[in-house]
Amino acid sequence: MAAPSYQAKMILERILKNGSVEKRMAELQPRLPEDKPLPPGIPGGKEYTQEGLEARWRLLKEMGIKHDQIAGRGEEIPPGALEGNIENFIGFARIPLGIIGPLRINGSEAQGDFYVPLATTEGALIASYNRGAKVLSQAGGVTALCLTESVSRSPCFVFDNILEARHFLSWVLARLGTLQEIISRTSRFCRLMDLKTAIIGKELYLIFEYTTGDAAGQNMVTLATEAISKELIAGSPVKPRHWYIEGNLSGDKKATMLAFTYARGKRVVAEATIPGRIVQQFVHAEPQDLVRLWQVSVMGGIQSGSIGVQGHYANALAALFIACGQDAACVSEAAIGLTRMDLTEKGDLYVSVSLPNLIVGTVGGGTHLPTMRECLEMIDCYGAGRARKFAEICAATALAGEISIIGAMAAGHFARAHATLGRKGSKS
Amino acid sequence: MAAPSYQAKMILERILKNGSVEKRMAELQPRLPEDKPLPPGIPGGKEYTQEGLEARWRLLKEMGIKHDQIAGRGEEIPPGALEGNIENFIGFARIPLGIIGPLRINGSEAQGDFYVPLATTEGALIASYNRGAKVLSQAGGVTALCLTESVSRSPCFVFDNILEARHFLSWVLARLGTLQEIISRTSRFCRLMDLKTAIIGKELYLIFEYTTGDAAGQNMVTLATEAISKELIAGSPVKPRHWYIEGNLSGDKKATMLAFTYARGKRVVAEATIPGRIVQQFVHAEPQDLVRLWQVSVMGGIQSGSIGVQGHYANALAALFIACGQDAACVSEAAIGLTRMDLTEKGDLYVSVSLPNLIVGTVGGGTHLPTMRECLEMIDCYGAGRARKFAEICAATALAGEISIIGAMAAGHFARAHATLGRKGSKS
Amino acid sequence: MAAPSYQAKMILERILKNGSVEKRMAELQPRLPEDKPLPPGIPGGKEYTQEGLEARWRLLKEMGIKHDQIAGRGEEIPPGALEGNIENFIGFARIPLGIIGPLRINGSEAQGDFYVPLATTEGALIASYNRGAKVLSQAGGVTALCLTESVSRSPCFVFDNILEARHFLSWVLARLGTLQEIISRTSRFCRLMDLKTAIIGKELYLIFEYTTGDAAGQNMVTLATEAISKELIAGSPVKPRHWYIEGNLSGDKKATMLAFTYARGKRVVAEATIPGRIVQQFVHAEPQDLVRLWQVSVMGGIQSGSIGVQGHYANALAALFIACGQDAACVSEAAIGLTRMDLTEKGDLYVSVSLPNLIVGTVGGGTHLPTMRECLEMIDCYGAGRARKFAEICAATALAGEISIIGAMAAGHFARAHATLGRKGSKS
Amino acid sequence: MAAPSYQAKMILERILKNGSVEKRMAELQPRLPEDKPLPPGIPGGKEYTQEGLEARWRLLKEMGIKHDQIAGRGEEIPPGALEGNIENFIGFARIPLGIIGPLRINGSEAQGDFYVPLATTEGALIASYNRGAKVLSQAGGVTALCLTESVSRSPCFVFDNILEARHFLSWVLARLGTLQEIISRTSRFCRLMDLKTAIIGKELYLIFEYTTGDAAGQNMVTLATEAISKELIAGSPVKPRHWYIEGNLSGDKKATMLAFTYARGKRVVAEATIPGRIVQQFVHAEPQDLVRLWQVSVMGGIQSGSIGVQGHYANALAALFIACGQDAACVSEAAIGLTRMDLTEKGDLYVSVSLPNLIVGTVGGGTHLPTMRECLEMIDCYGAGRARKFAEICAATALAGEISIIGAMAAGHFARAHATLGRKGSKS
Repeated sequence: MAAPSYQAKMILERILKNGSVEKRMAELQPRLPEDKPLPPGIPGGKEYTQEGLEARWRLLKEMGIKHDQIAGRGEEIPPGALEGNIENFIGFARIPLGIIGPLRINGSEAQGDFYVPLATTEGALIASYNRGAKVLSQAGGVTALCLTESVSRSPCFVFDNILEARHFLSWVLARLGTLQEIISRTSRFCRLMDLKTAIIGKELYLIFEYTTGDAAGQNMVTLATEAISKELIAGSPVKPRHWYIEGNLSGDKKATMLAFTYARGKRVVAEATIPGRIVQQFVHAEPQDLVRLWQVSVMGGIQSGSIGVQGHYANALAALFIACGQDAACVSEAAIGLTRMDLTEKGDLYVSVSLPNLIVGTVGGGTHLPTMRECLEMIDCYGAGRARKFAEICAATALAGEISIIGAMAAGHFARAHATLGRKGSKS
Repeated sequence: MAAPSYQAKMILERILKNGSVEKRMAELQPRLPEDKPLPPGIPGGKEYTQEGLEARWRLLKEMGIKHDQIAGRGEEIPPGALEGNIENFIGFARIPLGIIGPLRINGSEAQGDFYVPLATTEGALIASYNRGAKVLSQAGGVTALCLTESVSRSPCFVFDNILEARHFLSWVLARLGTLQEIISRTSRFCRLMDLKTAIIGKELYLIFEYTTGDAAGQNMVTLATEAISKELIAGSPVKPRHWYIEGNLSGDKKATMLAFTYARGKRVVAEATIPGRIVQQFVHAEPQDLVRLWQVSVMGGIQSGSIGVQGHYANALAALFIACGQDAACVSEAAIGLTRMDLTEKGDLYVSVSLPNLIVGTVGGGTHLPTMRECLEMIDCYGAGRARKFAEICAATALAGEISIIGAMAAGHFARAHATLGRKGSKS
Repeated sequence: MAAPSYQAKMILERILKNGSVEKRMAELQPRLPEDKPLPPGIPGGKEYTQEGLEARWRLLKEMGIKHDQIAGRGEEIPPGALEGNIENFIGFARIPLGIIGPLRINGSEAQGDFYVPLATTEGALIASYNRGAKVLSQAGGVTALCLTESVSRSPCFVFDNILEARHFLSWVLARLGTLQEIISRTSRFCRLMDLKTAIIGKELYLIFEYTTGDAAGQNMVTLATEAISKELIAGSPVKPRHWYIEGNLSGDKKATMLAFTYARGKRVVAEATIPGRIVQQFVHAEPQDLVRLWQVSVMGGIQSGSIGVQGHYANALAALFIACGQDAACVSEAAIGLTRMDLTEKGDLYVSVSLPNLIVGTVGGGTHLPTMRECLEMIDCYGAGRARKFAEICAATALAGEISIIGAMAAGHFARAHATLGRKGSKS
Repeated sequence: MAAPSYQAKMILERILKNGSVEKRMAELQPRLPEDKPLPPGIPGGKEYTQEGLEARWRLLKEMGIKHDQIAGRGEEIPPGALEGNIENFIGFARIPLGIIGPLRINGSEAQGDFYVPLATTEGALIASYNRGAKVLSQAGGVTALCLTESVSRSPCFVFDNILEARHFLSWVLARLGTLQEIISRTSRFCRLMDLKTAIIGKELYLIFEYTTGDAAGQNMVTLATEAISKELIAGSPVKPRHWYIEGNLSGDKKATMLAFTYARGKRVVAEATIPGRIVQQFVHAEPQDLVRLWQVSVMGGIQSGSIGVQGHYANALAALFIACGQDAACVSEAAIGLTRMDLTEKGDLYVSVSLPNLIVGTVGGGTHLPTMRECLEMIDCYGAGRARKFAEICAATALAGEISIIGAMAAGHFARAHATLGRKGSKS
């Protein structure tokens, strides 16, 4: 999860673009409900009745959140609207949507109290995340920082031997400064940020790293990479015997140590410090109970050979991605990271999550489809300028889940929650 | 991806339960379209018009496949039907559904020609999988074998030192034979298959491995593990200072080497041998072109630090899981495995996929929800006795995707497909 | 680091073979120096003078430890003595040897106070391990348990398709009970313990797991595996198109998650609880200082993508392996594992190490060579019946190193030690 | 195994420093024995007799290679000579030394035909590497390139929250340009090349990457990092609550994906193309036999969860490191990488090895000790200006081992070699 220094500097510059360090720092500080009241909680009573449902719709309405499509009252979607999203279209899968919140976030991009939409069929999931959101919001909210962003494509060029591979690499390196112009012919938003190189003999892998505006960007970087690869090859005195647009080194659609190390997509860190009394009140456990379990979980995670160690980011991300028109296949790569719990000197609970691989976008992909657009608008993440904000909300939601599941296990009522909330389908 | 010998024997026994080796072997052989004609392809013409949509509905109707809910013509779903699947329900996310096929599968459980429903918003995905299905079916179909199945839960017991940990372990091992009775009080379907143990000093992790009938089973194994853990602790002369229902060693909701090694959920291997002329005709490349790219991709995958090496299983699995009421968060753990391509002595293309970690079910979870049930019924995977069949369809679909993407890259038209089919949303 | 239940049972049985649980448990308890005095420390004064050297020789002599060859006073070694150890022999590399100790070990096999020989050229290494030994011995010593042992060989059999691979596997499984007889023709000591199987399509990997007496055993298992493979193929109705004695799945000479998960070689866990006052006196830090640093190191280790997380087992193992005639190339696979530090309820320091992959032997290999034999005899580990004992000493030494390095860093004098002790060579 | 573009440029510049691209390229081309005869092979006849030994000594003498200390005829080593290499010194471990060669290397630094000294007790090892050297030399030798070099130290700074961590990071980044001056006070050779940063919440890890002249450099970078860390903290407006000189993220003494990805120490790629007739003559197999086995080994290696995939680099590196005064504990980190075999269009055998993590030096450490110095001088690698050369010899030797072991297994005589050469010790 290491960023080179030039990236670290870019981050600092971007953060400071909109104000002084002091001002930006102030925005990231916790804000206690005592000082700034929270909006109302979600009426969960009479959970599975029409009245319960309508009570939640009323809350959304009061909050100015459109939900016609979600509620099944919106206009029909004509097949033509799906061009670019699907082929052999036959209709729609309908996935239940619930909400959690308010989740207070004090982020570099996401600022405010959010009702977060989650699409899932796993009972107890939303109840658990909602509890986590409550704990975090009571503690003043989640500090969240989108640190870096990049999407990569890694073409591979095959030569007869390493000498030719190096010769071609020299050619490429000498033309680095000219590539952006070629890229710009394929997209207005695609920017080449860095090039990494891997030679393993006669094969040369180039890892082009781009920013892609507010789009998830996988297609954008494919087209850009194709354009520059073709032009580089055309001009080079030494030609590859074969070349491929992707050498399986970019980490696309899979969990990789490379993404965990370098970051891919958006890298977000989120943290909160939760006073002992709030842990006691809402989790029914002591901070040190959670810290102790976390340590055991870290030892377990290491033994399992996971990439990073965390509890269940996948639950948050799958539910958010499906709700918000993201590419759900990217859960495979995004659901890695590092959760950290610690006891502060005062005996409070410190917790952070680091997600190095959030491939998300607020334009393009499925974001324009009716229910997905409503979900994105619910968290003010529809359209340009909001992708980093959305990434911070992803991380804050993942943090809510970590607090809740570790709290539930530490307090010994994890199995019970699943027995009461999650069993209907799988009852036996 | 190694199974202990007792598991390997179990597999053999199960396979032979329904007939002689010869008969079972015969079922797994390729069946060429010349010998057994394929059902009609999917009318994709006029892709995004109402007529195109209705042509596909007609096909489904002719095939006897119900699709009222998918088509948006079914009954309303009352909130009460969602009990056990979601809390704080506000409506439904609608994800576009497409189909691929026919995909011929000659599996130990899945036998026949399938139209497979996929839910996605990623343009070009379904076209690509459909092409893969065509290549495979023309070659006689996919041989698929669900090899093993198990779902694990790994409680952790914390003692003061290793001596106490071992003392407790002796107690547990001496009672192994009595645990099934306790488990049976929590579920009719849950069977304890094996216990693995990990001592890393004062902490003892037990990895209980169960079969869970046709349910995905994560809740089932949680309740079973809680029951046996409590009873073991109650009787033991040495008590843990703390214990936790999950020590983060089971691999739940994350990609792990442990699952890749031991298998978790259902492990399926699928393969096909594709004659050179079919590769030429449908992929516009030679078998050796694909093999060469595959080798480069393996080197790239190794360098990326992925768990196993494959192309993009996640695309198939996310789309199938969302369509069919599976837990989409499990894409994080399921989308690992090993793709293998080779040239046969005759110069044909051999390809296999191995997926060690398919946590899927055909009862419970979201399987009963209206569109999901229709999707499962489309592939005859709704209800008891069909979970292994569904797992084989997952693997066969993943195989279709691997052939197609590697073929497209080998033939150099990967970027072009994305440019024409997948750009609407992210156009710039 | 998970052992299947049958292995766990075997361990218990072996441990109990020599006495009651109570007796064996008693042997593993810490023994404080107050109750059982420690032998003298090593005279390190006048470190680099002839007098210092002779003072250490006197200590060895008093302890009855032969060291003629080490001291350069032994007989010449004729070339003929090296048959089976080296080809193209031209002489000897001389590596400096030092000792640490006494290191008190309360192991299931290693019982007593040991002076441990370490061969190294890295300044400060021995001083650091010696300090760790002192801390541990003052605390009553290291509890060490050799939990499991096995050496594997994984031949690969290539067929035309998965059906043939499975057919052959059935043949193998049906003959499992007959293989030991074949093995016994190749070695008196080699015992087949388990067979794991991995099918990834047309290739079948068999992982044969053996015990190898007190030899490291890599050659032994190669010959055994060749014998059974040939006999299995000869009899089988379906023949592999190709087969290879090793499919690179055994983990031989490389760090693998498989070994970390399953154990390979000898798996040893060692632990100690160190009273706060001893930490303060010898480490000049508080127990919580070490625990805090350990937590940070675990987070760092996870981010580095290591297999397991530990500090520097490699230092202990390389120095011990070179001194004691082990295969130093096995440091590559042995130097993985898991270090765990925790604070006890009383505020003392708990520390454990787990080494899952100690490929070591006390017969065969280089053990009979003159200085190596003396080193093994120094710790009473020369010859049959002592391989597990040697493995426990390896783990206890690794533990001494972990305490010392983490202690040094926590106390802030790590860099200083290297500046004063380790710089001569690399001074600049 | 990816280098950022600035590193790639540095490499190119360094390579071109000593001549034109064409000239440098020419140096890296294979040189066939027909065109440039090889020096004599090693007299291995009468392997274990005094005459055999003396024949080899004569060869060394004829080649002008000093070997008095190796042969046991040199001066005594006074204890004082060991200051900085060992404490509690009691004598020397004597490890048998053999040689392989001539091994022709056409490297960017290593140019010529080398007799390579290897210290081992593993029978058959040297015979196997010698055979590999013969195959490679007959084919015109090994092209070897030391691509990058860096040694890292990764201190960790602990704050109360991420805001403080970032504040400190800004401070550090703003002072990057001033750090070299501080470093220069600790060493003349240590150069700061890059800084990577990892924030996982309140903890900030800085990964300082240095070059260390021709020393392995671990101590050098420790002292440099301590100096700059202290100065940075002293000046910073926000102080860490704790800080540690190493956060276990540098990969020191352990196999890590980070090193495999980023490179640590020296990264070397070596390759050779071996005509089919030479494979047939010396390996008794066809090129495609080796390629096929290599593919199976890659699949096996992936399944084993190794870092990279290779056969047994550890054997070459342990034997070279012990012989040549390197830190043998670094075998744990160095023995990772990627071996690649392929068939050329002409049907010849292409093979390459990539070693990303060679921590080696030709000054400092044990390099000055008598037998080690002789071994380094044997390959003209003693003293300043030769560390990259030594790294290239390491890689070429590893390549010889890969060819030999894969060739032996492909030809089916691996087990036989071990039965005849390696069994004396472990015979049973």
